Amino acid sequence: MEVKVVQKVMKVNDELAQGVRLRLEGAGVACVNIMSAPGSGKTSLIEVALRALQGTPRIGVIEGDPDTTLDAERIAACNAPVVQINTDGGCHLEANLVGRALGDFDLANLDLLLIENVGNLVCPVGFDLGENKRVAVVSTTEGHDKPAKYPKLFRSADLVILNKIDLLPYVNFDVEIFRGYVLGLRPGVPILNVSCRTGEGVDAWCSWLREAASGA
Amino acid sequence: MEVKVVQKVMKVNDELAQGVRLRLEGAGVACVNIMSAPGSGKTSLIEVALRALQGTPRIGVIEGDPDTTLDAERIAACNAPVVQINTDGGCHLEANLVGRALGDFDLANLDLLLIENVGNLVCPVGFDLGENKRVAVVSTTEGHDKPAKYPKLFRSADLVILNKIDLLPYVNFDVEIFRGYVLGLRPGVPILNVSCRTGEGVDAWCSWLREAASGA
Repeated sequence: MEVKVVQKVMKVNDELAQGVRLRLEGAGVACVNIMSAPGSGKTSLIEVALRALQGTPRIGVIEGDPDTTLDAERIAACNAPVVQINTDGGCHLEANLVGRALGDFDLANLDLLLIENVGNLVCPVGFDLGENKRVAVVSTTEGHDKPAKYPKLFRSADLVILNKIDLLPYVNFDVEIFRGYVLGLRPGVPILNVSCRTGEGVDAWCSWLREAASGA
Repeated sequence: MEVKVVQKVMKVNDELAQGVRLRLEGAGVACVNIMSAPGSGKTSLIEVALRALQGTPRIGVIEGDPDTTLDAERIAACNAPVVQINTDGGCHLEANLVGRALGDFDLANLDLLLIENVGNLVCPVGFDLGENKRVAVVSTTEGHDKPAKYPKLFRSADLVILNKIDLLPYVNFDVEIFRGYVLGLRPGVPILNVSCRTGEGVDAWCSWLREAASGA
């Protein structure tokens, strides 16, 4: 009985996600769903991109968190339109929440919508939000074994960011083992080494976002 | 209808957790449930405690992960009895999994059972596993805002560990803001600063575990 209910929830989500996708396509807005563990640096990655790209492409942001508007405040300080979704303890975003948030954006004035999912390596993966691309973020402080232990996210990623690369000298993290795990799960996926503190890799991250915005 | 099913699942879990609790109490084994985001250092905290405590108290470990036996192999290398639970993608441990794992331990030769939950700040919180105490771990690389954004775990914690304190000089983390958030959610909860690399705070962590094992 439980399985039937879960299937129903997933089916409804998939239908709502398709509605979000069509609405964004109609408005010429590409969409990227960014997922990681809590504290991997998703918000910082969005901040550095907004500051570097300076409105080209025009980016809107949906921030998902169980509680607080801390992340939305950080994005608003970058002069980007932002909507905070509080899940009230919920562990992932769903398409119905994204669909409702779309009404708060002027889609005609956007090229790209970035969705920062709830910090969670497991639950968000199964929920299509209507995105065109998925980004998985891991920070060097989390250990190189994370893709092996949490494989599902990496199997569906279009880009993997290894963040906080500036902390590599201070942690026990083997980049080659990490890359091996990631490429074993998702052959050919691009992997970017980034530091939001030093700026390393930010150009490549911005280039990827420009391509995503152009529908490439 | 979904709500009814969820309530049923939680009720069954609570009953099974009570069974685990009574079985452990009968055997004189205390139980601690350790929760955090992925990569906060739960396994390392268990490793350093096992090496420092040297069998007094006698500790068994349950390792929860969506996939792999990497963590159980690390614990086995410390000569502690360990059972790996793979949730096959699942986002938290439940009492029925713990109950089944108990059969793989010689409870008469244990004083303390440590359960490392799946790396997830949201989903494990609602599931009683039959533990006596709960430990919440945050690492300094995750940002001081995590208790505010993921409050539920901290409201039920008996100990909060701020791990990777050696990385403090290299990250943007305000210990006082962090402590303020934690103590606002759970007044009076002890907060230990620990580094598994330098050994800072390991003595205090071991003292806490000794007290937990004695039922204090």
